[in-house]
Amino acid sequence: MIDIEEFGIHEGISEVIFTTISPDGIPNAAPMGLHRKGGRLFARIYNSKTLDNVLSKPTAAANITDDPVLFVQSALSDIEAGRFEYADGVPVLLNASGWVIFECKCKKGENVSVVELSPIKGKINQLKLQPVNRGFNAVIEALIHATRYVVFKEQKYLERIEYYDAIVKKCGGEREKDAMRLLYEQVEK
Amino acid sequence: MIDIEEFGIHEGISEVIFTTISPDGIPNAAPMGLHRKGGRLFARIYNSKTLDNVLSKPTAAANITDDPVLFVQSALSDIEAGRFEYADGVPVLLNASGWVIFECKCKKGENVSVVELSPIKGKINQLKLQPVNRGFNAVIEALIHATRYVVFKEQKYLERIEYYDAIVKKCGGEREKDAMRLLYEQVEK
Repeated sequence: MIDIEEFGIHEGISEVIFTTISPDGIPNAAPMGLHRKGGRLFARIYNSKTLDNVLSKPTAAANITDDPVLFVQSALSDIEAGRFEYADGVPVLLNASGWVIFECKCKKGENVSVVELSPIKGKINQLKLQPVNRGFNAVIEALIHATRYVVFKEQKYLERIEYYDAIVKKCGGEREKDAMRLLYEQVEK
Repeated sequence: MIDIEEFGIHEGISEVIFTTISPDGIPNAAPMGLHRKGGRLFARIYNSKTLDNVLSKPTAAANITDDPVLFVQSALSDIEAGRFEYADGVPVLLNASGWVIFECKCKKGENVSVVELSPIKGKINQLKLQPVNRGFNAVIEALIHATRYVVFKEQKYLERIEYYDAIVKKCGGEREKDAMRLLYEQVEK
């Protein structure tokens, strides 16, 4: 029995990297919000490779990481096959601080599907002391606007990204600055 | 010898709660950014109780915590004496995940002083797995605008607070919502 509290998954929305596998065995990674509300744990998944994978094989892993580059790569480009390992056939990220594998029950919607998550297995790789870094947090916010920008191409999203980039420049470390460089490369494509 | 990396204090700015003591023995707590750049570790401290304390007794503790209520209380109101303990006469927060005590060398400025920090002692109380919670991060951002609002009373800061409050409502847990209630109480005074 998994206690998801030990994995820091509390009430509210936890942002993780969700890993799934396609019918032909290709792993996929994408940022995902895990909603915990009352006794429920679920994700709201838009039509995507992640949703296709979960519909064909209803297991997925939530990878917990504080690496801002992994968030940007999984949202806007791809994570190479060599950076996954497998637990009971489910892909997880080699560099995650920990992961939980879930059984997924999908309620298919037109644009967004609600996927109920039941934890079946978990692993903690590294526990940490983690002071707040506003630079890291700003990468996550910038990334949300970046994923909208690449779809809608609206100027307001670029302005938001710039607002957060200023916080990264002021408060972030090298890893956060690398993440923003990668984000801008993908956005300017 | 303290390795501040073990305390998660990396390049960039780490947001912690700084605790100091007054000449008459009253502990004080305030949010603080610890700047780590090249080999240096320092804080930029505005004229405040914290600065007065450090000028009279040049030691301070950086408390690492993920409790959003502690951040809001220490920024906008006071933390009760019963929530401190003492290490070599320096106040630290009972509920911190960890703390580092620093020797402080102040270079007094007119409005802001640069305080160089040399770690002398540290303690880890609790290591964690901590997925990203955008609600928690939004409390920290809202708090920065709140500390400006209480001084300058400009509408733009209230608008920023509202922007972040919407993220807390969507993504935060009970503790983040408590923190925002406390923030609004203090701001509306």
